[in-house]
Amino acid sequence: MKPAKISKKAIVLLSGGLDSTTCLAIAQSRGFNIYALTIQYGQRHQAELLAAKKIARHYQVQKHLILKIPLTAWGGSSLTDLKLNVAQSRSFQSMAQGIPETYVPARNLIFLSLALAWGETLHVEDFFIGVNVLDYSGYPDCRPAFIHQFEKLARLGTKLGVEQNWKLKIHTPLIHLAKHQIIQEGTRLGVNYAWTHSCYHPRPNHAPCLKCDSCLLRAKGFQLANLEDPLLNRFFRK
Amino acid sequence: MKPAKISKKAIVLLSGGLDSTTCLAIAQSRGFNIYALTIQYGQRHQAELLAAKKIARHYQVQKHLILKIPLTAWGGSSLTDLKLNVAQSRSFQSMAQGIPETYVPARNLIFLSLALAWGETLHVEDFFIGVNVLDYSGYPDCRPAFIHQFEKLARLGTKLGVEQNWKLKIHTPLIHLAKHQIIQEGTRLGVNYAWTHSCYHPRPNHAPCLKCDSCLLRAKGFQLANLEDPLLNRFFRK
Repeated sequence: MKPAKISKKAIVLLSGGLDSTTCLAIAQSRGFNIYALTIQYGQRHQAELLAAKKIARHYQVQKHLILKIPLTAWGGSSLTDLKLNVAQSRSFQSMAQGIPETYVPARNLIFLSLALAWGETLHVEDFFIGVNVLDYSGYPDCRPAFIHQFEKLARLGTKLGVEQNWKLKIHTPLIHLAKHQIIQEGTRLGVNYAWTHSCYHPRPNHAPCLKCDSCLLRAKGFQLANLEDPLLNRFFRK
Repeated sequence: MKPAKISKKAIVLLSGGLDSTTCLAIAQSRGFNIYALTIQYGQRHQAELLAAKKIARHYQVQKHLILKIPLTAWGGSSLTDLKLNVAQSRSFQSMAQGIPETYVPARNLIFLSLALAWGETLHVEDFFIGVNVLDYSGYPDCRPAFIHQFEKLARLGTKLGVEQNWKLKIHTPLIHLAKHQIIQEGTRLGVNYAWTHSCYHPRPNHAPCLKCDSCLLRAKGFQLANLEDPLLNRFFRK
């Protein structure tokens, strides 16, 4: 008799955006039993959180944990400091110059550390994060070298790492994909992008502004993928 | 005319315990302008937090930031999970065996990441943490290799690190000191240990239990330093 297949647990960082949702779909397609972690770090709006909840429900994740981590205490980013403006209508060329104001100090380090703590408690070896080095983002904590170094540090600084040679792995399935490739992969896996939220500065009804870097990169991604963004239908073409 | 001395900023992780308070006193004695960070991560009691507030006030720190980070969401430690018991009356020999149940998954990684984010916003280069490898603690995230690796990761994963060659340094002035040496150093600097809280399982009036590992190590430290613990006077010999 074949033993029942026990699927392996994985923690997926889920913001409710296009990338993290695709990342979750990829993790599930690889047979993982998903524990989704959403960090409410004081973003300007609730649209992402609502998206994350809807997506976690749809994918019937084992558990969806939402943590409030007040990174607004010090600001330092146009995403967490209401006094700063979110850039609008920038050219892709200007996005490519330097690290943008939407950089949140040490965000992925904090997120991965929290995921690691939860994962150590659950004895999870597999972690998924939808970071991406392309698309002009320039965020230092999205690069392969950072992820690799984090894995080393995690093995060094945890009880499981020291006592049980924890084989933890940070999976970054999107890291070398362009936005249109991410969209193509997600579409192949049946992701409903109408539920995902990307905009940095949404309208009160959570409709995207269509002008911030994130909206512009999303629009270009759908264009290059030769697909329609169903989010636009949801908000603008009812 | 001599220019006014501008003291350099430092972030000090301050729990309100004996070690972190000594660490703060050391940082101040080295001329740093202190920004104290206290993380309320869901400890069993408020005694540490009250101690931290009192100490930060006494040292007239530039700012005392208290962050609520709910590490109770997953437990995994006798400090954050009320279902687990805190060990009582253990021998020092048994404390020396393995990582204790008071280990909180990835705690110092999370704390240092948060300090780093605040520090990046303030352009601070100096961070102080009162970690210590001796005294049987066995916590993996208190070792020099972990701290060194964290510094490397921090430079790699931050905007200041990548764009401005951030010379950040994690100071660990207690790392190789035994408890009695920490107490001697703090006493030399005028630390009032009656304000510091060490107990894992205090009584309702915040008096120490005198039986947990932390109380036992503290008592042994004062004994070897040939000093009286003023905390005992405060609670038991009024």
